[in-house]
Amino acid sequence: MKVDGTHRRSLWPADGRDALFVIDQRRLPHECVVARLEDLAAVDAAICQMTVRGAPLIGATAAYGVALQMNADAGDAALDLALQRLAATRPTAVNLRWALERQAARLRPLAPAVRADAAWDEADAIADADVAVNRALGAHGLALLRTLQRQHAGRRLNLLTHCNAGWLATVDWGTALAPVYLAQAAGLDLHLWVDETRPRNQGASLTAWELGQQGVAHTLVADNAGGHLMQRGLVDAVIVGCDRVSARGDVANKIGTYLKALAARDNGVPFWVAMPLSTLDRRVSDGLRDIPIEQRDAREVTHLGGRGADGVVVEVQLAPDGTSALNPAFDVTPARLVDALITERGVVPATAEAIAALTRAAPGPADDG
Amino acid sequence: MKVDGTHRRSLWPADGRDALFVIDQRRLPHECVVARLEDLAAVDAAICQMTVRGAPLIGATAAYGVALQMNADAGDAALDLALQRLAATRPTAVNLRWALERQAARLRPLAPAVRADAAWDEADAIADADVAVNRALGAHGLALLRTLQRQHAGRRLNLLTHCNAGWLATVDWGTALAPVYLAQAAGLDLHLWVDETRPRNQGASLTAWELGQQGVAHTLVADNAGGHLMQRGLVDAVIVGCDRVSARGDVANKIGTYLKALAARDNGVPFWVAMPLSTLDRRVSDGLRDIPIEQRDAREVTHLGGRGADGVVVEVQLAPDGTSALNPAFDVTPARLVDALITERGVVPATAEAIAALTRAAPGPADDG
Repeated sequence: MKVDGTHRRSLWPADGRDALFVIDQRRLPHECVVARLEDLAAVDAAICQMTVRGAPLIGATAAYGVALQMNADAGDAALDLALQRLAATRPTAVNLRWALERQAARLRPLAPAVRADAAWDEADAIADADVAVNRALGAHGLALLRTLQRQHAGRRLNLLTHCNAGWLATVDWGTALAPVYLAQAAGLDLHLWVDETRPRNQGASLTAWELGQQGVAHTLVADNAGGHLMQRGLVDAVIVGCDRVSARGDVANKIGTYLKALAARDNGVPFWVAMPLSTLDRRVSDGLRDIPIEQRDAREVTHLGGRGADGVVVEVQLAPDGTSALNPAFDVTPARLVDALITERGVVPATAEAIAALTRAAPGPADDG
Repeated sequence: MKVDGTHRRSLWPADGRDALFVIDQRRLPHECVVARLEDLAAVDAAICQMTVRGAPLIGATAAYGVALQMNADAGDAALDLALQRLAATRPTAVNLRWALERQAARLRPLAPAVRADAAWDEADAIADADVAVNRALGAHGLALLRTLQRQHAGRRLNLLTHCNAGWLATVDWGTALAPVYLAQAAGLDLHLWVDETRPRNQGASLTAWELGQQGVAHTLVADNAGGHLMQRGLVDAVIVGCDRVSARGDVANKIGTYLKALAARDNGVPFWVAMPLSTLDRRVSDGLRDIPIEQRDAREVTHLGGRGADGVVVEVQLAPDGTSALNPAFDVTPARLVDALITERGVVPATAEAIAALTRAAPGPADDG
């Protein structure tokens, strides 16, 4: 997608295969800064500290993290350590595990001497596949949007999205926003309601920025507002990404997604989840019981960063001194509230049968279980 | 309630009846500053700018605003102008209209020469009645909490509240928090989940502060977290205040309340609304259609105030330059999602019949329609 009119991916390897460049997402929307990650420790920190975030992008970044480690030490012990260390960075998004398992399967049979090149090739393949998958997913989502627009007699469509499932959450295109960008290119009249997505405000700092860069009409709202907007008929569909989907269709996504799914159901608004198959976890059925939910630092709730009047970005304290806070980063939306899963292989209902049929039809990334 | 261990109301008249003192709620939680309001314009501004907020407190403040105007000019024209001007400050909370109608009924029959004294007397009566009403409401709520605690075998109760419906939203005691303070006094083991309540963060800045001052155990959470907490069995009841309740029991309250009501219903968690009868609007039946929803400045969404590391409170920008935002301040929770209305006359279901029976039984503040 575009930044200041120039096409960019959210991450790319250095030409010499000695570093990974990523857009530092903690600095957005106030400045677009590129970070150069030169070793495993830097990649580990970038994922933990959310310099990069978004389930597909975490997967691709971790794949490059393995490649950087193979440059330094391609022995079996170093490989296993890199895989373990990266797997521990974030617990909820399953794409991370998927990407690491791809690297493990590719590298373990190889002699250490050829692992580095293979690891960079595999990471490049994962990144390129992410772009292709999201493009395909977007095309299936576009068909849903065209149908929705016909139902609403061709008037402007209002979609609501939560967190950032745009190109910044992936290598390019995005998941939930891929259909939006394709719809924009196809001339559909669209407007997005952007949930600010507390506590880290990915909606305000990433989605609003990204949509602004691409020229898609959008309006920022507090996370609290979505139900009211739906009651007033101001939302035609909700479209979100996901961090892990269980075999029966339960969807782990950014905290607060479940509340929007409830409001969508209560108001007859379609609730769609954009799911690249790398986000499916066939090992888990009951997502509410078995998907681990990351607990993040309470300080993300009690403090917040923003740009002061002098242009300097500072952190401010919101709560009284000493206030305890709990910060679950994800919630699980039960499959019964999901009207459609939009995948790179087509749109399916959130049922065990439909998901199984989809992955049986053409073996691929989700068949690692 | 207490501030630094000393009992305080949230507003009180000057001894000479020439000014109204209020706690400036925009400065909390970082400092507790008292503002002196000396005329109608100052009261108007204090309500509009949310120096004071909370439906019951807005009503009492407006009553004193009329009294201040009667000091300056007690003629019919000045009285009508004061009533109109104050009525226009905030559109959703109906207690404002109720308090102004009380003042109008008291003052219009009087000669201008005696109106000022009468207006101060009436404002004092409204403030004192607010304290008594909340105390009574709290006792009825305490009975609900005792029942809930028995159902949960005497273990610690976890309640979730949204926005601030504590003593800062009233003259004293609070509405949703009155039962909590009485339960604390009675030795019940309670813990509150406090929604931060974007965009103005009344949960973080007012409720967390107030509960901290009173020594009630609490944990701050992002507005997005409540559904997840309920799914995990970590919420035993939701208790909120309200800004206007329709004759059939639809509840206008701070934006985001509806989402928590949906999550409560989906998880079998009781959803309770603390409603002094001054918040009932018998002229409105369909609250979703007919309760006006205040739209506030987009800047409340795109910017946020907080305390910097140097101790100075500053406003920071969260969204990209030029981002559009929509800021509805309230939503309406349909009566079907409300399990109980806790009033000063008892606990009733949110039905037209029960509400009508309650107000028929003992005519009072709600019988102005």
